[in-house]
Amino acid sequence: MREVVLGIDIGGTYTKFGIVDRDGNCLQESFTSTSKYLGFDAYWENLHSEIEESFLHLKEKVTLKGIGIGAPNGNYYRGTIEFAPNLNWKGVIHVTDTLKNYYKDIPVVLTNDANAAAYGEMIYGGAKNMKDFIVITLGTGLGSGIVVNGELVYGHDGFAGELGHVNVKLRGRECGCGRKGCLETYVSATGIKRTVFRLMGERIVDSELRNISFNDLTSKMISEAALKGDEIALAAFEFTGRILGAKLADTVAHTSPEAIFLFGGLAQAKDLILLPTKKYMEENLLPIFSNKVNIYLSALQETNAAILGASALAWKELGV
Amino acid sequence: MREVVLGIDIGGTYTKFGIVDRDGNCLQESFTSTSKYLGFDAYWENLHSEIEESFLHLKEKVTLKGIGIGAPNGNYYRGTIEFAPNLNWKGVIHVTDTLKNYYKDIPVVLTNDANAAAYGEMIYGGAKNMKDFIVITLGTGLGSGIVVNGELVYGHDGFAGELGHVNVKLRGRECGCGRKGCLETYVSATGIKRTVFRLMGERIVDSELRNISFNDLTSKMISEAALKGDEIALAAFEFTGRILGAKLADTVAHTSPEAIFLFGGLAQAKDLILLPTKKYMEENLLPIFSNKVNIYLSALQETNAAILGASALAWKELGV
Repeated sequence: MREVVLGIDIGGTYTKFGIVDRDGNCLQESFTSTSKYLGFDAYWENLHSEIEESFLHLKEKVTLKGIGIGAPNGNYYRGTIEFAPNLNWKGVIHVTDTLKNYYKDIPVVLTNDANAAAYGEMIYGGAKNMKDFIVITLGTGLGSGIVVNGELVYGHDGFAGELGHVNVKLRGRECGCGRKGCLETYVSATGIKRTVFRLMGERIVDSELRNISFNDLTSKMISEAALKGDEIALAAFEFTGRILGAKLADTVAHTSPEAIFLFGGLAQAKDLILLPTKKYMEENLLPIFSNKVNIYLSALQETNAAILGASALAWKELGV
Repeated sequence: MREVVLGIDIGGTYTKFGIVDRDGNCLQESFTSTSKYLGFDAYWENLHSEIEESFLHLKEKVTLKGIGIGAPNGNYYRGTIEFAPNLNWKGVIHVTDTLKNYYKDIPVVLTNDANAAAYGEMIYGGAKNMKDFIVITLGTGLGSGIVVNGELVYGHDGFAGELGHVNVKLRGRECGCGRKGCLETYVSATGIKRTVFRLMGERIVDSELRNISFNDLTSKMISEAALKGDEIALAAFEFTGRILGAKLADTVAHTSPEAIFLFGGLAQAKDLILLPTKKYMEENLLPIFSNKVNIYLSALQETNAAILGASALAWKELGV
């Protein structure tokens, strides 16, 4: 019997899940809706039946050793999702307690999605031999997973690693958290859109992005325009990398990592985001850290990265 | 035989050393000059003979189990002092290697002075039952020791915890590190002096501090003036706490500590620095961290705190 874990990535719109072995081979994967369900119980009833159905043919061939879950606002210590702004379920959802009723004697562990990405990088990705590194996830917002001495940093309450909400500018851009000037309002798929719109207001240079509404614009369109030499798009990437690089220099002064990995939608822009981030981080580093910290694109850029992250969490944390 | 360790705190002007038992009782302590010696070897020859002389009467009564050293720019991994701007010895000094020639079979461990303060707080001070906390040392500069999951954060190169050099302001005050706008140029015994001088230039209100030259002014004079209601001094503490509080809010977003301890000269000002720091940290915290993180004055405010820190390092790290 092959030993496997079940990895579940709960996103705002979809939930992805898969069966993964110790080497990171995904034997089976699928997805279902998250946003369709207004209550967690109904959501889980559906997800559970989809999981059972989709793995029926594997039942005789594998032994399920554990379940790992990545979720927005996931709390590792309590196994809960707490006040997640992008999910329908309000308040505190006791996720691992619910799952344990269905999968008796199978250990279940949950963490937030950025920490899951860090586990993925650690077990299957570019950080395999590293003890001190950071993963920055650049999606709708900016998430982070900080690894110190081979262990994820959770802090006393399980909420460490909220780099999306360090301050860039007093009285800066409005943030979904209710404050102003947070890093993710500048550096994320949404942040770069906001920058493009500010630049279109400030400058008069022509740009193909001037034909697209705010709601229609994606970070992918911005990187496509940049690759064609669009000045607004190029300036937006330069600005985004400048803000991120400067803030990463401060983060290096906290935990002195060997490397920082960029993960998620905006990281798909590759050198467009990587090069200015590197340049401005170096410019802002304390001299003792100069030329010591690498910035890489995540080695898990495939479509099932989120499932691998949740699976890696299970393998690493359950010690199975 | 009572088991003891030797704690050595290497400061820019003086070196303090003492014999400390497991419970933090300092059986004997003394000090000698640091700055008098241009080379490390001559310094160590003198320090060694002073140590031997001062502990002669204890030799029959104690067993020396280890030696802990706190030093500016101390590197834990290599047992070195590296490019310390405030010491006469330039380049990389192999401290633990030298000591091992004199104390064979006795484990020797070294860390930077702020990390030693964090060990002191952990073993003998206010953080005895905490796993996640931070110590901020407010002396000539600003140092920090970050503890995650019960362990000091060293990072991949041993230089983690340089919060004195996170950026407060682009093109801000000149820093001894060669850059501009570093936190310690605003928040430290030197930083608050600089603030007082800026305020005396900006404002016209009378102040007893207007009779004192920059070189003569100390942070103690500023706190004494503030206690008498001096407007410039009070405004300087408010400003210092505002900058520190805002930056600590960003630090909380990194490692989510249970508490932050203020240690060193400027912390002697007590509520003058503690209250504005607390207020502005809370104002800048991400809501999930609100009212969760305590700020305390160090519980090791006595004169031998630095020796206790170095001793605590020995007890904790040597596992003896």
